[in-house]
Amino acid sequence: MTPPRLALVPGEPAGVGPELCVRLLQQPRDYDLIAYADPRSLRAAADALALPLTLLPPDRPSRAPGEVAVVEIPNPVLPAFGTPEPANAAAVIQALRDAAQACLDGRLDGIVTGPVHKAAINQGGIAYTGTTELLAEQAGCEVVMMLANAVVRVALATTHLPLRQVADAIRPEPLARTLRILDAALRRDFGLTRPAIAVLGLNPHAGEAGHLGREEIEVIEPLLERLRGEGLNLIGPLPADTAFLPAKLRGYDAVLAMYHDQGLPVLKYSGFEHAVNLTLGLPYPRVAVDHGTALDLAGRGLADPSSLIAAATACARIARTRRQTGATP
Amino acid sequence: MTPPRLALVPGEPAGVGPELCVRLLQQPRDYDLIAYADPRSLRAAADALALPLTLLPPDRPSRAPGEVAVVEIPNPVLPAFGTPEPANAAAVIQALRDAAQACLDGRLDGIVTGPVHKAAINQGGIAYTGTTELLAEQAGCEVVMMLANAVVRVALATTHLPLRQVADAIRPEPLARTLRILDAALRRDFGLTRPAIAVLGLNPHAGEAGHLGREEIEVIEPLLERLRGEGLNLIGPLPADTAFLPAKLRGYDAVLAMYHDQGLPVLKYSGFEHAVNLTLGLPYPRVAVDHGTALDLAGRGLADPSSLIAAATACARIARTRRQTGATP
Repeated sequence: MTPPRLALVPGEPAGVGPELCVRLLQQPRDYDLIAYADPRSLRAAADALALPLTLLPPDRPSRAPGEVAVVEIPNPVLPAFGTPEPANAAAVIQALRDAAQACLDGRLDGIVTGPVHKAAINQGGIAYTGTTELLAEQAGCEVVMMLANAVVRVALATTHLPLRQVADAIRPEPLARTLRILDAALRRDFGLTRPAIAVLGLNPHAGEAGHLGREEIEVIEPLLERLRGEGLNLIGPLPADTAFLPAKLRGYDAVLAMYHDQGLPVLKYSGFEHAVNLTLGLPYPRVAVDHGTALDLAGRGLADPSSLIAAATACARIARTRRQTGATP
Repeated sequence: MTPPRLALVPGEPAGVGPELCVRLLQQPRDYDLIAYADPRSLRAAADALALPLTLLPPDRPSRAPGEVAVVEIPNPVLPAFGTPEPANAAAVIQALRDAAQACLDGRLDGIVTGPVHKAAINQGGIAYTGTTELLAEQAGCEVVMMLANAVVRVALATTHLPLRQVADAIRPEPLARTLRILDAALRRDFGLTRPAIAVLGLNPHAGEAGHLGREEIEVIEPLLERLRGEGLNLIGPLPADTAFLPAKLRGYDAVLAMYHDQGLPVLKYSGFEHAVNLTLGLPYPRVAVDHGTALDLAGRGLADPSSLIAAATACARIARTRRQTGATP
């Protein structure tokens, strides 16, 4: 089997993305990484950290420590670390789109992304709500956001929604699509044969038999029952406060939280450094860091590359699993 | 200083409360425990677990392992373990009220409570939403629920509220009262001189500058600014997903979560067994277990007494701290 070939997209060039890429590239690896970036930006980060970096043409094998193949996406401005330039917004987005297109065309096997600075992109005149949404739109499919570390996988039924809009967003059809995408990804990307998914309730104590809210009775339970009839292995709805007890986590392969702050505090508490952000449902694997651009740390060699290293490792592993499960043409 | 004298109220007699009390009573202790219970219920639990238990009159010193002073509150029915009797509802509630009254009268220094079975009380014809609410009403004061273990203290701005009602419940005046009670309790009960309180945002990413909700800008931030002017040491509003990172937790003495499932999953994940539930704002310390009646385990010696032991230890420590800080007459 040829090694997976993965796109590596640093994200905001003024943030920690370029230096995290340089540090990732020092690691031994058994997959190719092709950077979609401005070579000057990678070089500046390598120089700032006094680390070796050899840039190769895009079609060359790129697995040796300190080396990376590069598809050049020039930034109009080489920014100072810590100061995003709105003039670079289009290039930051183009790098993501070109890398994703290479995956959609079957030229690459997955995409690993660093952090993008949302405000800088929007200040540059490009409407951008997040890389997950951008890739979903480009691929024309629905996706599910899942964060994972060595302790737990947490998928989200709703993501970046004001809390007062959450209850109305928990409806049968979106929830069914989310659960089907999650189930399919756990099978295809993680090689699980009948993944057990714990579904949290929306309300405290999962509604306590209707005393603390009725969405469990009216929406979630009937839907879970229907999907169980389709063969999904669903547990719940469970009270969120006790669903994450370590002894219980061993009983399921993933947790579906109804909203952002119900699921992510435990995920981040239990292993922030090695956590990654996966986009499920795309035709290709995409894994991102679970942190932001950390502008205050950029260029100083202080940022922890653990999440980016974990993201690349996870992306390569998923690419291999997809081949084994026959999910990749 | 005389040892603190604490009421011990087992809660539902058909649940694990009585046997947890018997197991707590086997521990060495440097404070008096006075059970408010039916002696037959304690005896049945001790017999079921084959543990020694000596029952003493209520005014006797009660610090030796295996001994406890008892204020008799007879249950009309001696229930089988696992099967609550609605006929006992009034006695279960009276035990709580009598113990609390002894604290209000200054005869006892605090109250330690086991789990009550909400449905059994209501089936017995007594309107009951929770022991916290019952004690607050009896004392005529507002209270704050805080759960704590060795890792983190989490107080709640709203407790058992359907999720769709949470956003409207985050208003300046209730939030101000909650923060003042929390600050005062951390000083009086924990001996902290200027407690640092991390206040979570309501929305994901604490609203991300208004993009994901405006309650932070319109309600929480102005209130925090006002209370800082009164001398409170408040941090936030913080994004909930990263506020619990272990390195950040070391920077504050407590976290105020806006709602139940935002704060309690991490608390329970990080140390369920030793977690306790404190009622802040009462004239006396009250500490409870953080778990339910576990009817399926009752009478079998399988229930873990760690939370009740931690609750009694915490209550005694707070009673001593209150004397030192001059908070107790």
